[in-house]
Amino acid sequence: MKDLSFDIAKRLPEGPGKHGRSGIIHTPHGDIATPAFIPVATKATVKTLTPEQIRATGAQAILSNAYHLYLQPGHDIVDEAGGVAKFENWHGPTYTDSGGFQVMSLGVGFKKVIAMDLADLTEKDIRAAKRERMAKVDEEGVDFRSIIDGSKHRFTPEKSMQIQHGLGADIMFAFDELTTLIDSRTYQEESVARTHRWAQRCLEEHDRLTRERYHRPKQSLWGVVQGAQYEDLRRQATRGLLDLDRAAREKGRRGFGGFGIGGALEKQNLGTIVGWVCDELPDDKPRHLLGISEPDDIFTAVEAGADTFDCVAPTRLARRGGVYTLDGRLNLTNARFKRDFKGIDEEFGGYVTENYSRAYLHHLLKAKEFLAGTLCTIHNVEFMVRLVDNIRAAINGGYYEDYRDEFLGRYYAASKAR
Amino acid sequence: MKDLSFDIAKRLPEGPGKHGRSGIIHTPHGDIATPAFIPVATKATVKTLTPEQIRATGAQAILSNAYHLYLQPGHDIVDEAGGVAKFENWHGPTYTDSGGFQVMSLGVGFKKVIAMDLADLTEKDIRAAKRERMAKVDEEGVDFRSIIDGSKHRFTPEKSMQIQHGLGADIMFAFDELTTLIDSRTYQEESVARTHRWAQRCLEEHDRLTRERYHRPKQSLWGVVQGAQYEDLRRQATRGLLDLDRAAREKGRRGFGGFGIGGALEKQNLGTIVGWVCDELPDDKPRHLLGISEPDDIFTAVEAGADTFDCVAPTRLARRGGVYTLDGRLNLTNARFKRDFKGIDEEFGGYVTENYSRAYLHHLLKAKEFLAGTLCTIHNVEFMVRLVDNIRAAINGGYYEDYRDEFLGRYYAASKAR
Repeated sequence: MKDLSFDIAKRLPEGPGKHGRSGIIHTPHGDIATPAFIPVATKATVKTLTPEQIRATGAQAILSNAYHLYLQPGHDIVDEAGGVAKFENWHGPTYTDSGGFQVMSLGVGFKKVIAMDLADLTEKDIRAAKRERMAKVDEEGVDFRSIIDGSKHRFTPEKSMQIQHGLGADIMFAFDELTTLIDSRTYQEESVARTHRWAQRCLEEHDRLTRERYHRPKQSLWGVVQGAQYEDLRRQATRGLLDLDRAAREKGRRGFGGFGIGGALEKQNLGTIVGWVCDELPDDKPRHLLGISEPDDIFTAVEAGADTFDCVAPTRLARRGGVYTLDGRLNLTNARFKRDFKGIDEEFGGYVTENYSRAYLHHLLKAKEFLAGTLCTIHNVEFMVRLVDNIRAAINGGYYEDYRDEFLGRYYAASKAR
Repeated sequence: MKDLSFDIAKRLPEGPGKHGRSGIIHTPHGDIATPAFIPVATKATVKTLTPEQIRATGAQAILSNAYHLYLQPGHDIVDEAGGVAKFENWHGPTYTDSGGFQVMSLGVGFKKVIAMDLADLTEKDIRAAKRERMAKVDEEGVDFRSIIDGSKHRFTPEKSMQIQHGLGADIMFAFDELTTLIDSRTYQEESVARTHRWAQRCLEEHDRLTRERYHRPKQSLWGVVQGAQYEDLRRQATRGLLDLDRAAREKGRRGFGGFGIGGALEKQNLGTIVGWVCDELPDDKPRHLLGISEPDDIFTAVEAGADTFDCVAPTRLARRGGVYTLDGRLNLTNARFKRDFKGIDEEFGGYVTENYSRAYLHHLLKAKEFLAGTLCTIHNVEFMVRLVDNIRAAINGGYYEDYRDEFLGRYYAASKAR
């Protein structure tokens, strides 16, 4: 079975911080045409959907969480089942993240800090966030408590690799430290250096496991770039990963098959930060931007050079009745939809619009029927997948800027007008 | 559009209380080959399933509840949507029940009384049941409180017809009084007489509404036989409905298109009671047994002469991880399924068994993932539908008794052995 590889199809105009392109990631379980939106299957299920329903949205690959599957049901069980794709009956490419984000973000106060704009935080918020942090980082790894039962656990770079090899996804990520917007510059420097050393340990453990385990297709390890909002740290982190990759290959070992771009980002810096990283990265490896899904962020990140995207927002929002339309988001629990017999978005179309009315979805949401979550999730995933598919088609067709301006102009104008 | 009609295909050996047969119910939205299991779509959704998933189980028709849809979203909204089938995107025959069962059963203590065996009830249970009864019956109708918000409502036979015409199902039921096992013989007599008068009012209101409303296919009203465990009352109730039907037709009005058999029944009397009713009923009209789904009950009822069955048990059970197999029921939340990589029932097969392991379903249930309910529901509905399909094939093929003995022998032997 061949290693993962990447071909570029077409490029947007290039320049500093501008590296947009379309392409194809070839994985052992199929191709991913990029740019692509990758739905999140946290616990080996895109919440509420069967694999057939996921496939019908147009999704090409799905991403599961090492953290969640380690805690429940245990990566050993997923391994015995034949890996996460077989376990969840997904016949296509899979990603797993490293657990780095989750072990450090799933404390309540901490979550708030990474989600909010820095300027909105009070001193009290910051103190609460630091107090409630559930994870403790040292040079070797991270101690954390389970969100399920509060039990104590420890992740190290090696442990993350072992878990992700058990899960057996086509694409996996190096174990990194997630910092926050409230950490000091000094701490960010220390953290980037530590994440670099962890990436080295991930490469070594991945190489060892790949040689020892021959029963699963070759997995591709992607390095993760941190460095918060600092240009020098982001560039240094990226070059550091490339050094590690080169050194590994010189020893005849496996290097990085691609790169992830992580960290808590303020929305207004997103494009700039992704641009710094992509200035440094080579052209021939795919780049995944972790945890982003607002339409404008996706356009920004594509232009800067990101190829794939995942985010729980479209599915999480859907279960509460929030749905995307070409004219911005609607909340179907709103009473004004009680007698609205149109589909969600007649112009966008799609399975849910073509088969169900807003009034029916409103009824299901009010009655707390499971099917509400399923149908709204199908719609939102289809919306996001097709949005990114359209971006790809626009790059390939040479009309990217027109598509972007038309889409965003309408999406946000309508949101503001509402 | 043609009225509902019924053709008999083949009969089991006949005798007193034995009127088993296979056949086809022709409805404006398609045929139902009988015997048939009809999944329940309480609030215009078979909980957790899309219409495509319902169809894939082999289900031919679904049954919704007038009570629930009256309260939420309101039958007027379903009416505006074009009727319940269009509202829920179901392209096939539909049933609605009258609300009679729900208005009188959805008080907590009362529910217990109709669900339990009479012998298990203490005096305290009975007092609690009477106190907690949420409905008050008089000659004109029933006052009850909403299970959603406790608000006061009133159903009459006319109101039930108006609601069911708004819902627009192919098959609807006359509004009846549900009695309980603890009611006195005198009360049962009064109740049967009242249900008879209500059936007459239903026929008249149905006739009026059918003449006034020409925008929906002709709906078929089925009379409901009550009479509890008393042979004379059951036979009298049945003959009474036939008298009403005859009188209506003599006046050139619409009569009953079929019959429902209702009431709280003790399991051991089920076949006997259905047999009394079917002794009286004509051959050429279909018979629906309301709310029955245990496999042995279905065989018993088919032999006595029932054609179709509905029950919430397969779907309700599924959402808690209870699944049917040829060797009895399993509860997939049990820890012994944690590493069980077989399908639910390799011999039975079906979509869920062929695509997912017990270990995966156990994981989804433990993680409280929505997909657990969806997959277990698909399995149970497919199991019940196919069981009744197999009964039909066995009647048509002349091997009914062999099939019954083999199925039940294995199903219950294994349940006991476990």
